[in-house]
Amino acid sequence: MYSVSVRDHFMIAHSFRGAVFGPAQALHGATYVVDVEFRRAELDADGIVVDIGRACEVLKATLGAFNFKNLDEVPEFAGKNTTTEFLAKAIFDRIASAARTGLLGPGAHGIQTVKVTLGESHIAWGSYEGRLAGA
Amino acid sequence: MYSVSVRDHFMIAHSFRGAVFGPAQALHGATYVVDVEFRRAELDADGIVVDIGRACEVLKATLGAFNFKNLDEVPEFAGKNTTTEFLAKAIFDRIASAARTGLLGPGAHGIQTVKVTLGESHIAWGSYEGRLAGA
Amino acid sequence: MYSVSVRDHFMIAHSFRGAVFGPAQALHGATYVVDVEFRRAELDADGIVVDIGRACEVLKATLGAFNFKNLDEVPEFAGKNTTTEFLAKAIFDRIASAARTGLLGPGAHGIQTVKVTLGESHIAWGSYEGRLAGA
Amino acid sequence: MYSVSVRDHFMIAHSFRGAVFGPAQALHGATYVVDVEFRRAELDADGIVVDIGRACEVLKATLGAFNFKNLDEVPEFAGKNTTTEFLAKAIFDRIASAARTGLLGPGAHGIQTVKVTLGESHIAWGSYEGRLAGA
Amino acid sequence: MYSVSVRDHFMIAHSFRGAVFGPAQALHGATYVVDVEFRRAELDADGIVVDIGRACEVLKATLGAFNFKNLDEVPEFAGKNTTTEFLAKAIFDRIASAARTGLLGPGAHGIQTVKVTLGESHIAWGSYEGRLAGA
Amino acid sequence: MYSVSVRDHFMIAHSFRGAVFGPAQALHGATYVVDVEFRRAELDADGIVVDIGRACEVLKATLGAFNFKNLDEVPEFAGKNTTTEFLAKAIFDRIASAARTGLLGPGAHGIQTVKVTLGESHIAWGSYEGRLAGA
Repeated sequence: MYSVSVRDHFMIAHSFRGAVFGPAQALHGATYVVDVEFRRAELDADGIVVDIGRACEVLKATLGAFNFKNLDEVPEFAGKNTTTEFLAKAIFDRIASAARTGLLGPGAHGIQTVKVTLGESHIAWGSYEGRLAGA
Repeated sequence: MYSVSVRDHFMIAHSFRGAVFGPAQALHGATYVVDVEFRRAELDADGIVVDIGRACEVLKATLGAFNFKNLDEVPEFAGKNTTTEFLAKAIFDRIASAARTGLLGPGAHGIQTVKVTLGESHIAWGSYEGRLAGA
Repeated sequence: MYSVSVRDHFMIAHSFRGAVFGPAQALHGATYVVDVEFRRAELDADGIVVDIGRACEVLKATLGAFNFKNLDEVPEFAGKNTTTEFLAKAIFDRIASAARTGLLGPGAHGIQTVKVTLGESHIAWGSYEGRLAGA
Repeated sequence: MYSVSVRDHFMIAHSFRGAVFGPAQALHGATYVVDVEFRRAELDADGIVVDIGRACEVLKATLGAFNFKNLDEVPEFAGKNTTTEFLAKAIFDRIASAARTGLLGPGAHGIQTVKVTLGESHIAWGSYEGRLAGA
Repeated sequence: MYSVSVRDHFMIAHSFRGAVFGPAQALHGATYVVDVEFRRAELDADGIVVDIGRACEVLKATLGAFNFKNLDEVPEFAGKNTTTEFLAKAIFDRIASAARTGLLGPGAHGIQTVKVTLGESHIAWGSYEGRLAGA
Repeated sequence: MYSVSVRDHFMIAHSFRGAVFGPAQALHGATYVVDVEFRRAELDADGIVVDIGRACEVLKATLGAFNFKNLDEVPEFAGKNTTTEFLAKAIFDRIASAARTGLLGPGAHGIQTVKVTLGESHIAWGSYEGRLAGA
């Protein structure tokens, strides 16, 4: 199994609801360093897993929708705790959609799984990994 | 599959028995930077994999049993080479036990697998990954 | 010249005022990974720059005053842009005060300079470095 | 499942063919930081996954065949794009061969899978993971 | 003293002349991860060392002149060994020039020193640090 | 000012004497990741700060004298606490001696200062920096 990974980051404010979050129930924020790993069993005709330039552009555009935002005010996240692991899935869904609609290039149909990891500090990180529909 | 990981460290002395270890048969030591990854298929009602505060406490308590020790004198390790990979399993067993006994919180019953990685230097690390009993 | 450094982190929300900040004028947030370096010309009688346990405690307490806060609502920062470099100075001032008041231990009077570095992402960081009063 | 990983690096020149590579079609180069992870279900009699000394030697020898080379002039790569993911597989093949021929020591027959990861920068990396023949 | 640092990278081919370089006399290449640190005694009216957005743009443009090149064919480097430390100075000169010509913004006139560090692998890096003319 | 840095590591056991060390008074150990930075105002005729190959060899030989040892039994450290910062100075002295005796090559006489940093974990490190005699 082959993989290629790319990294970018975004910076947001948010708060959490639930006693389990303790002081993080207050409005605070985070920098998330985001790694997206693309996996497939065989390389394409160019010898690559994915066009790394397009992968970087798609990742930047995906994170751009959240960057410098207060996630408490993002309608689609209403009623949700935007935890690290929840956000990893939200970003996975967007990357998966980009793959399906061709934004990652024609060779990207061979990508089988994607893993999104969000580093929230030097001592904690979270991820979501799933198959691409149709892969 | 979702995951959350936390990091801590401990510092020990030990020696190894067996020609394969070469100069590491002498009494020496190591700093181990320990990453524990918790994985599950679905988030709990709070939108998390595990209570990250409890996960950090359980990890610190687990490593505290070894920290600043000479592992050659720890009774339960008698007759064992306390290699990086062996210690990864020993820490996994303790984290798994903590999950079973509720120390990671009530939501932790949904955790399916745990991976423990010990970094011993900037060029070498080892890990153990296993399923939680009952998961 | 000797040095010892310790690391911790905090997570905050804030916004900036000024066209130079572009989209960061909106309420957003950051994780800051904070390194504090203590420097002195000679070690103390125990062979150390600073009691590393106390240094970690002072750093944690210092960051605890900001952690999980919206810095826009912190009175002492009113009218200020809480940029990475500004916060580095704010933390330096607190660490310097802790050294003066003995919180770093009696040996800490030998510390001459302190440098505080805040990592805001994998591609950007800021710092403030200054002398301790009386050093 | 247990694992042990070791790290080394090599520095090469190469060029790519194909519009997908954009400006990387020109002769340029890269430092690859290479991680090799060995995995097996049970430790050997010494309590290890692999002799870490031999693993480091085999990795250094493997990378030595490419280090300080122009990969465009390496006969076995003729007609191939020596992408990060392609090179991960090429290194995997050599490590797998070393395991089969005993260069990793007699205990290495228990190794089941090997993963080779090549870091090409702080924001991109690629890997190949496969089973060892006979494992 | 305050500082702000930003990071980017570039990938080049080159060769060295001189017995001291051993096998690196052959055409090979490197990824350089580049950190640029800007330092000044006082923050500007916005509370910053430098406009971090402009700093990133200037760094990317500076590295873009070298990225995906064979440095042996860059006229201004003719007869020079483009070592890590030499390249750090070459990049410093361009960043210094950008500061003088206003590309870093009007507040950048307060910047006193700049340090450029090039990471060539996980075990080696080089830097050049100098004062800005007029600072 | 130019610099070049190289990295290696060593693993030791030791204990400390003095109440300030708390539980670290017991026999334990550490991995130290060691960075040595060489600085000089001008490059030599080859365009380098130091022969990086020789620098790596000298560092490895220096650390080899301590690696896999119990520092409590090293005669020259008798009566000393082998703290991170103390060891940084001990390694500095050996690197400085190697420079004087020509082990770093004839060009090394231009090196003015050396800084030795020992990382003891992901959250703590220490260093010693000094001038080379005659520089």
